[in-house]
Amino acid sequence: MDNEKINPKNVILGKNVVIEEDVHIGQNVSIGHNTVLLKGTYIGDHVTIGANCVIGIKPSGNAKMRKTNGSLNHLQIHSNTRIGNLVSIYTCSEIFENVFIGDHASIRENTSIGSGSVIGRGAMIELNTQIGKNVTVQTLAYVTGDSIIEDNVFVGPCVSMSNDKYMGAQDYTLKGPHLKNGAKIGNNASLLPGVTVGTNAIIGAGSVVTKDIKENSIALGVPAKENPT
Amino acid sequence: MDNEKINPKNVILGKNVVIEEDVHIGQNVSIGHNTVLLKGTYIGDHVTIGANCVIGIKPSGNAKMRKTNGSLNHLQIHSNTRIGNLVSIYTCSEIFENVFIGDHASIRENTSIGSGSVIGRGAMIELNTQIGKNVTVQTLAYVTGDSIIEDNVFVGPCVSMSNDKYMGAQDYTLKGPHLKNGAKIGNNASLLPGVTVGTNAIIGAGSVVTKDIKENSIALGVPAKENPT
Amino acid sequence: MDNEKINPKNVILGKNVVIEEDVHIGQNVSIGHNTVLLKGTYIGDHVTIGANCVIGIKPSGNAKMRKTNGSLNHLQIHSNTRIGNLVSIYTCSEIFENVFIGDHASIRENTSIGSGSVIGRGAMIELNTQIGKNVTVQTLAYVTGDSIIEDNVFVGPCVSMSNDKYMGAQDYTLKGPHLKNGAKIGNNASLLPGVTVGTNAIIGAGSVVTKDIKENSIALGVPAKENPT
Repeated sequence: MDNEKINPKNVILGKNVVIEEDVHIGQNVSIGHNTVLLKGTYIGDHVTIGANCVIGIKPSGNAKMRKTNGSLNHLQIHSNTRIGNLVSIYTCSEIFENVFIGDHASIRENTSIGSGSVIGRGAMIELNTQIGKNVTVQTLAYVTGDSIIEDNVFVGPCVSMSNDKYMGAQDYTLKGPHLKNGAKIGNNASLLPGVTVGTNAIIGAGSVVTKDIKENSIALGVPAKENPT
Repeated sequence: MDNEKINPKNVILGKNVVIEEDVHIGQNVSIGHNTVLLKGTYIGDHVTIGANCVIGIKPSGNAKMRKTNGSLNHLQIHSNTRIGNLVSIYTCSEIFENVFIGDHASIRENTSIGSGSVIGRGAMIELNTQIGKNVTVQTLAYVTGDSIIEDNVFVGPCVSMSNDKYMGAQDYTLKGPHLKNGAKIGNNASLLPGVTVGTNAIIGAGSVVTKDIKENSIALGVPAKENPT
Repeated sequence: MDNEKINPKNVILGKNVVIEEDVHIGQNVSIGHNTVLLKGTYIGDHVTIGANCVIGIKPSGNAKMRKTNGSLNHLQIHSNTRIGNLVSIYTCSEIFENVFIGDHASIRENTSIGSGSVIGRGAMIELNTQIGKNVTVQTLAYVTGDSIIEDNVFVGPCVSMSNDKYMGAQDYTLKGPHLKNGAKIGNNASLLPGVTVGTNAIIGAGSVVTKDIKENSIALGVPAKENPT
């Protein structure tokens, strides 16, 4: 009873947790040891966060790196989402309900991750990227900035994406891949800037996708060719 | 003398170390600053653990992810093993003597790592995987779940493995690769679900292994072909 | 005024920051929560370091791993450099002015990183490696040990390099790739031990570079061929 008076929200805080100002923590939340919740972070009900995480990071960079302007001015983590250990998440992003984010993953600003999706361990999600519902992004996959990943997509482990056709040599509007509903990308495949992978298309492991892939097709090889026989 | 009475095991603890209940720490152990030892972890003699690690993590997940039942109900780290910084290790796993685990590496539950093996920085070892003795898994390599890696295997940097033929689309008994004694996998190679790489076989860098590779052979390319001329 | 007397250098320290002996911290430095600065680290003026980092790590290893002898006996981080969160950096390395190091990156001993360079999130830089000025090493790229990366080079995301022709099977003088001024390496390309990529040469995404590439050429495929038509 006394305990409920002190902590009516039933929040479990580990040791050495750092909570900055303007942080909202919902009911039945658990925060692991040594985790840092930076200014302005919003954490919904029944959220679990592991140990040694850094949550709500403000973007930074050097002169070589671009600046971003987000529509959201803080990080929102919705209810029932679970976050692993040693994870970094930036501000100005929205993580919806029932998401799982694995250990060592990193999620940049101006990103949204739809409900029920899984982001694997060590996966890196860059800025300005939209990820739909029930998406799986597996371990060590790299989702570049300015990408669109629709619902039910599967991104295999170690998949690599890029968004800069000129590799920093020219001014260019960065554009990541667009993966349509239900597309499946095999492990360690490489996707080039701006390619679209059609609805329910399948990309073989280790393939290099240099142009758009039609819906329902299977594409394999370096460079990837559709429906090989 | 006074110091020996206070700390007869000669344990060096960094600042802000968190030690939960039922943790066993052997003699001459060193634990870095801000490291977290979770409930039930067993640490043998002469073990070194770096800073900001999370050791003994209990598995979690969302509705999309499978559950596991381990035979071991806690984490055992045997004597003379050295663990880097910012490492995560799950419970229900066994890490034998003289193992080295690099910074930022992550090791899941129901895994065993044989004596004298090296797990590189940022390498990710998934659940239900057996790794033999004197194995090298290099930096940023991904060892998928349900894999078998025998003794003396070399897994190059950024190697990628998968265990799900249907990429989440069908029910399927997950099966990772089986790498036999002394097999060597070149950097950034991709291994498909369930493939066997034979004893002392060599896989070229960047190759995609889609079927079993015979012992003592060399396989290269996309897809990998044996003994090319 | 009182505050200036107490902290004349205008240093901002987060909570639970651990600072070991012989650490130099310049003026206008900011250190994030839970970050560890190990013995002998030198931090110049206007440096920013994020949360949960481990800075100034002394090399370690097991019997299988080589030892190194550095010319520098401590870590130097020069002025105006910015370091992200959950980063690990070893001792005996030098990071020059205006460098940016992303979250989860790791930098080993006996390494130098030239002014204005960017090391992406999760990128791993091995020991004995020289990186020039205005270099970009993107997210999750792996720069092996004993590599030379000249000025203005672009290393795409998930690029993989190796330095051991015999994958641990023979004694061999390890030699990483040499990337000459302005070379550009596409995402997820693999570079073999000792290859040279010439000045301003471009390597396509997902290519496997098995031999030297001439200056100003474009090389693509597995294995990579120059100036394909």
